[in-house]
Order: sequence, then structure tokens, then C-alpha cells
Amino acid sequence: MSELIEKAKKLKKASKATAMLTTEEKNAALAKLAEGILSEKDWILQENEKDILQGKKQGFSPALLDRLLLTEERIEQIVGGVRQLVNLEDPVGETIEAWERPNGLHIQTVRVPLGVIGMVYEARPNVTVDAASLCLKAGNTVLLRGSSSALHSNKALVHVMRQSLENSPIPKDAVQLLEDTSRETASEMFKLNDYLDVLIPRGGAGLIQSVIQHATVPVLETGVGNCHIFIDETAQEKMAIDIVINAKTQRPSVCNAIETVLIHENWPHTSALLHALKDKGVELRGDGKLSASYPFVKEATEEDWYTEFLAPILAIKIVSNVKEAIEHIDMYGTKHSEAIISENEKHVHLFFQAVDAAVLYHNASTRFTDGEQFGYGAEIGISTQKLHARGPMGLRAITTTKAIVRGNGQIRP
Amino acid sequence: MSELIEKAKKLKKASKATAMLTTEEKNAALAKLAEGILSEKDWILQENEKDILQGKKQGFSPALLDRLLLTEERIEQIVGGVRQLVNLEDPVGETIEAWERPNGLHIQTVRVPLGVIGMVYEARPNVTVDAASLCLKAGNTVLLRGSSSALHSNKALVHVMRQSLENSPIPKDAVQLLEDTSRETASEMFKLNDYLDVLIPRGGAGLIQSVIQHATVPVLETGVGNCHIFIDETAQEKMAIDIVINAKTQRPSVCNAIETVLIHENWPHTSALLHALKDKGVELRGDGKLSASYPFVKEATEEDWYTEFLAPILAIKIVSNVKEAIEHIDMYGTKHSEAIISENEKHVHLFFQAVDAAVLYHNASTRFTDGEQFGYGAEIGISTQKLHARGPMGLRAITTTKAIVRGNGQIRP
Repeated sequence: MSELIEKAKKLKKASKATAMLTTEEKNAALAKLAEGILSEKDWILQENEKDILQGKKQGFSPALLDRLLLTEERIEQIVGGVRQLVNLEDPVGETIEAWERPNGLHIQTVRVPLGVIGMVYEARPNVTVDAASLCLKAGNTVLLRGSSSALHSNKALVHVMRQSLENSPIPKDAVQLLEDTSRETASEMFKLNDYLDVLIPRGGAGLIQSVIQHATVPVLETGVGNCHIFIDETAQEKMAIDIVINAKTQRPSVCNAIETVLIHENWPHTSALLHALKDKGVELRGDGKLSASYPFVKEATEEDWYTEFLAPILAIKIVSNVKEAIEHIDMYGTKHSEAIISENEKHVHLFFQAVDAAVLYHNASTRFTDGEQFGYGAEIGISTQKLHARGPMGLRAITTTKAIVRGNGQIRP
Repeated sequence: MSELIEKAKKLKKASKATAMLTTEEKNAALAKLAEGILSEKDWILQENEKDILQGKKQGFSPALLDRLLLTEERIEQIVGGVRQLVNLEDPVGETIEAWERPNGLHIQTVRVPLGVIGMVYEARPNVTVDAASLCLKAGNTVLLRGSSSALHSNKALVHVMRQSLENSPIPKDAVQLLEDTSRETASEMFKLNDYLDVLIPRGGAGLIQSVIQHATVPVLETGVGNCHIFIDETAQEKMAIDIVINAKTQRPSVCNAIETVLIHENWPHTSALLHALKDKGVELRGDGKLSASYPFVKEATEEDWYTEFLAPILAIKIVSNVKEAIEHIDMYGTKHSEAIISENEKHVHLFFQAVDAAVLYHNASTRFTDGEQFGYGAEIGISTQKLHARGPMGLRAITTTKAIVRGNGQIRP
């Protein structure tokens, strides 16, 4: 039997036990898991060092090496994340709705675990623990498929997690690492409908597209954010500048950072905004009017409107009204996070109605599209698809429902 | 441009207008649609006659011809279904949750249409109208891909629907029939992620598997029902017999009918049940003990436990306790509808906890797994997958959510 099938079978079996655990049992196991990682941190760091050395040999970029790197501090953060999970409300068992039918049948929908979750991700080894502990908290089991560049780190982390679960209520088989990181085995994993209930890819657009293209298992798509801010005619100067600076520069490499600002042609503070962005070191790419008026603004290409720069680069366009802004977002956006800054409630209403995206903002930064910022406590990813979960996904997103129907002999006439 | 792409583009454009309509506008359009079908019923029946003649030439079975057939009465039923939709609550615009964050951000999740829905179905022309009107009521647009055997009927129905929408608030482009019923074009449709938000296959296992295997667009899987009833030691005789007879014989061809009964070895009424089933003309296939004791019970093969007979055939097995019943269901079930008949609340609780299925019943027939029986008013299908919607899917299942965040200048620290 291949490693994949063997581990998938174990996960499916373990998922039945894990689904039936109480909140207290799951929390006790998570506490052990946190403890275990902390007490084995030296060995984990040693194993991580092997990945780093190998990455350096292969000429990885400093950014990629940084994503791969574990430090004492990062391990403490990881452990802190697991401990936070203990305090979060358990979504499993929650009654969602309950009603009675005229024939006396009592119907109740309750939240239950999804089952077996396949996580597919890239270099960051922290995802190994973050994702596994989230899955366990919601009563699921998890097949982790990380990248080969982080294999030593992932093996160490999974070894420690499984060891920690050994004397806990959660069976250790609830967490499995797919050590075979070949493409062929990944493709096989994506079609494992008999064992996996869902696939969650986390990483760049290439990884996500590859999962979507090859999977027959349902996918929770986490995606690309080509996010916009529209500054309406009535937008307050300071508020608009503060929000744009925050949404572009506070952390440019993440999906909820903005890539394009659309400015109403009558907004009187365009020059102040552009200078503020320039002072922050943001490279500006504007439409013809802007690049003609401001020497530090390059002319944007058609390509720029489509681009998720993930860097201190911002595309800027002057629009004649809110409708033109909505049309631009409709054409180039990725349905992630879109904001309007305005004092005109009619325009805000139209924007909220007409823009099709996971999260829409009025007078706030798009950077709040995040599980923790939404108050979910933790996040398995940000969904840009429309089925099952849209926007930040917390514990509830990795559950499903059961309908429980109680009768006293009802038959269908 | 191919027919598929041309229609997909029109649907995407129309979906923006349709999503913003009020409930009253959508209801007015549905009323016109119902009226239009009724007033053109003679022509629709003429066109249906062409499909029937062609089907007879091709040697279709009487069952298949019956599925294809429209009659005056069936058209009236279809129209009645559309009129019922007018009275149903509009899920769009519903606030699902609203909360405030410590930083003053006000977050609200609201229900919005999914967008463009691709329906893939088989011979029944009534699905053409049922599915289209459900999609419209929830603010979606719909690409209908029926079978070539029903093409005349579907063309007529879609022509009449589009004509009826002409002077209504819903743009007529919100309903499109894919007239090219080739496999190649279907495959292309299943990968049309830029235009379609979801695919809903309705039909036999072959059709559904074909969509799942080839689709990159997310699929709402409606599926196979290998449903079971477990009769516990304490089950009341009359109740158990009535429920089994109902669940097997009231309409054996549907997915929520049962295929296997599991009987506790100490239940004293097995003989009465078997005779009652025999009197109803049900072919019985039992385990070795049963076939040895009852001459009218054939011996079941391993294959029988997996089979969705969709016919008056029932597999029967004696089990030694509720755990063995749960294990059998776990092994052979399709996670659709599973029932326990018992007076032992502990066993019921265990059954509800341990059986993984969309709908679980205590002392009631599995035949209630149905949108109308659940009180949803209408049904787009019964989901056997775990993502997005599980069990009977009403109007809400063809919506998604948007998060609306209102601030007064919040930026992320």
C-alpha cells in the first residue's frame, strides 16, 4: 500500500473517534500538543537548520529562506497559537436551527466536523502546526502535504505532535504528514474522494490553481487579493490618506493589502495623497492624466490593473463617479476585499449592493480581512470562492452539518 | 465565439442586474413566467411530442419515455411550482450575523445570490423550469444543460420563459439553454470558472460522477442514497413495520427510499416484518441466517449491501447490536439518510453521534429527506457532500454571503 493510501485510511479511521470527543477532551489534547512542541524545540530547530542549509545550497532567495526559518521566538508564537485555540469556542455540537413540522417531526441542524482535511501548502513550517491544531479543535483529522524544502522541519513537527497526542484523548493517527512530496502523489491525493472530505490549499496563485485544476475532492479556495479602495468625492482627506497608506504599506505582501486606488475626479486631495504615498516609498503607476501631472507617477499599463503586486507598488486611476469605480473593480478585481471611502451614504449603499466580493468596507482599511481581526480567534485561510465559506475562515468553516430528525412513527403519505 | 461562451457572457452580465432586484420585482417576473408557460402549453406539448417520437424511434424504455413526457397536467404542475415560489421567502438580503469589534468596526454578514449557476441534468423537461425559476428567485442566472433527448421540449420551455421575462424586471438573458449537447462542450462548460459560480448536476450516478471528475467549477453534489433503517431490540412492532414499508415501497425509485434494513437479533417481530414486506411484493435478500429460515428470502451477495436498488428489492441483515449496525452503515452507506427505530434513548444518541450522514432519523421514515418535507418550500436537489449545503437544498443553498464592514477611519495597527 502506498504511503498516501495507508495514511489516508488511518486518518479516516481516526476521524470517527475524533469527531465524538468532547470539547474538554480536545482541549486537553491541544494543551499536550503545545507542551510537547515547546519541550522539543531544540530538536525542531536542529531539524529546521537542515532545511535552511539545503535551501541556501539551492540558492533560495532571502525572502523564501525567511519563510522557511524557525526560531525560538517563532516556535513560541506557534505554541501560543495552539494555546489560544484551547480558549476558543468549540463549533462542534452547536445547534444551528431547530423547528417542528406540521406532522410533528422535530428537525434540528447541528454542527459536526468535516472529517478528513487535506492541507496543501508551501514553505512555511508554522502552517504545519497551525493547520493541524485548528483541524483537531474542530474534531477533524488532517493530512498535511507541505513542500519538500521544509520536509525536515515538517517531519520533526509532526513527529512531536503525534508523540504528544499519544497519551491524550485524540488518537495520534489524527495527524499525518505526507512525506512523499512528488507531484504524482499530490495529484493522487487531490483525487482521493473516498478518504478526503476537503482540500485546503494555502500558498501562491500557482499552488492554488494547481489544486483547483487537478482536484476532484471539493476545494476550499483561498485566493488572490487584487483589492481596491475607491475614494469618493466626499471622502475626508486625513481618513482617506491614512487608510490608503495603511492598506498599501502596513504589510504589502499579504492578500488583503490594496493594489489599486480609484479616485473620484472631484476629490480635492489627490495631490496630498500621492505625495504621502511617495514619501512612504511607494512606487506609483497612474493613468495617463496622473502620469502627465506628477513626474513621480509612472504610466500604468493594462497589465497593472490586473496585478496583485504584493509589494510597495500601487496603481492609481481617476474615475468620474462611483459607477465607474464599481465597473473597474468588476473588471479587474478578484472578489476579495474592496473599500469605499465616502461621506455619501447613497454611494456607500450602491457600492455595497453592486460590488461582488467576500468583504466590503466603508471608511476602513482592507487589512481587516483576517480571521483574528474578524473576531474568529484563528483562521484557516481567507476564502475567495462563493461556496461553503466566503472571506476569513475560522473554526466553523471546517465543520459541516447534520440534520437530526425525531419522530414518533411518521411515514410519508 | 462559441454558443457556450456567448451565453455564459450574457449570463454573467445579466447576473449583476438580477442580483440587485427587489423581492417584488423577482416575484412579478416569476408570475409572468408562470403565465407565459400556461398560455403556450399547446405549443410546448407539440414540441415535446417530437422528443417522444424520436425517443420511441431510438427504442427508449417506457420508464425513460415517461420521464421525458409532458402532459397538460404536468405542465400545470410545473406552473404551480413556479407560483409557489412567489410565496416563498426571499433569502437574498437576509442578515445572517452582525457584531461589533472592540475597535468599533461593525461587521455584518448578509445573504447574496451565488451569481451564475450551471444546471446539468437528464431527460425530465420539468427540471428546466423548476431549476430556472428557483435560480431566479434567489437572484441568480442559470445556464441549463439538459439532455439531447429532451432538446425540443427544453428549447420550447426556455423560449417561452425568455419571452415571458421580456417585459419583466428580470432580464431575459438570465435564462439560457445550452443547445449544443455534445460531450466536448459539456466538458468545456464544467471548466468555465470565469463565468460559472457553481455546477449542480441532477440525475443518475453516472452523470454526477462525470461532472465531479471533469469539473474545475465548484460542484454542489447531489447524490446516491444507499439508505438504511436499523430496527433496535426495543422497536415497537407496528411502528417499525409501517416505517420500513413506507421507506421501501411508497416510492422505491427515489434516493431517500431505503435499500437495507438492519435488525437487532433480539427484536421479536422479524417474521412479521418479512411477511409484511413479502405481501407488498418486495423482493427480499437476506444474510445467511434469514435465507435459511425464510424460503422467500434470497441470500444476499456482498454486492447487495452496496447497491442502491431504486426498485422493490430490500437487503436485510441481522446484527447483534447498535454498534454493528453503525459499522455496517459506515461501510456501505452513502451518507444520505439513515434511521434508527428504537425506544432506547442511549442507542438513539449513539446512532446520532456516530453515523455520518446528511439526515438522521429516529422513529420516522427516511422518505422525509426532501426540501418540501423539511419546510423549505422547494428544492434544487439533495446534497450528499459536506461542503456548503448538506441534505435537502432549498433557496438558501443557492446563495452565498458578503461581509459588510462599516468603520469611521479604522486602520490596522
